[in-house]
Amino acid sequence: MKSKLLLALLAVTLTGTATAQVKPEDAIKWRQSGYAFMAWNMARIKMNVEGAYNKEEVVKAANAIQATANSGMGSLYLPGTDQGTGWEKTRVKPALFTNKEGVGKVAGAFVKEANEMARVAAAGDAAATREQLGKLSATCKGCHDDFKIKDH
Amino acid sequence: MKSKLLLALLAVTLTGTATAQVKPEDAIKWRQSGYAFMAWNMARIKMNVEGAYNKEEVVKAANAIQATANSGMGSLYLPGTDQGTGWEKTRVKPALFTNKEGVGKVAGAFVKEANEMARVAAAGDAAATREQLGKLSATCKGCHDDFKIKDH
Repeated sequence: MKSKLLLALLAVTLTGTATAQVKPEDAIKWRQSGYAFMAWNMARIKMNVEGAYNKEEVVKAANAIQATANSGMGSLYLPGTDQGTGWEKTRVKPALFTNKEGVGKVAGAFVKEANEMARVAAAGDAAATREQLGKLSATCKGCHDDFKIKDH
Repeated sequence: MKSKLLLALLAVTLTGTATAQVKPEDAIKWRQSGYAFMAWNMARIKMNVEGAYNKEEVVKAANAIQATANSGMGSLYLPGTDQGTGWEKTRVKPALFTNKEGVGKVAGAFVKEANEMARVAAAGDAAATREQLGKLSATCKGCHDDFKIKDH
């Protein structure tokens, strides 16, 4: 009984108070939502640099990506969520839970370019936005190559 | 032939350049993702005001909600997407597409309280955060009551 309590307390300490109450299926659904929400915002920046450029819309999209990138989605990769289903079966590779150095590198590159995307969007130059979108997309791909399963 | 082209051009004008290329199933998936992403951030602000308060995490969550609220998700309610499936079957009520005044009212209240949530989070007071979370939640509920189907 006592060892069960100790294990439970340890689990709370390891995952942090704010994630201790999160169900695995919610964590998977929420991280899938964060990526899909960013996909929308990436898509509309792309549409703006390829079509009529609307600075206001690009700023909204870039700010949404920046806030998502800086939201701390890493906490949604709870132990045990290398398998499971949110909106759909998770596509995470087990390597994400073991290769901390590799994850830190791609995550850091992504946050850096997302912050830069917001700065470039605020300046309002379509050509610069297009160039920065390319850099940002490359950091998405960098993570997907190493840590996301392409198809089930 | 000419009238078809005119109709197509009119559709582009009505929905805006940046949404004209969006597939209905993507629009539904993206809006569902935006709401689920906010649900995560609401949940963790709640966990912080009910448990150990971590200012940095609350700020990240509040900023994510603010950017999402201001991202212009209204453009994802494309004509014809009162029915359809993204991650799951849409729960939108047809009223959202017809009651523009009502939608504007609840959306405006939501954006106002989301902006205020970010300001309150930055100040770092747990009691004020709890109070503002209540106000923000009420604006979510206000929209759900009128425009979201509870169950299929």
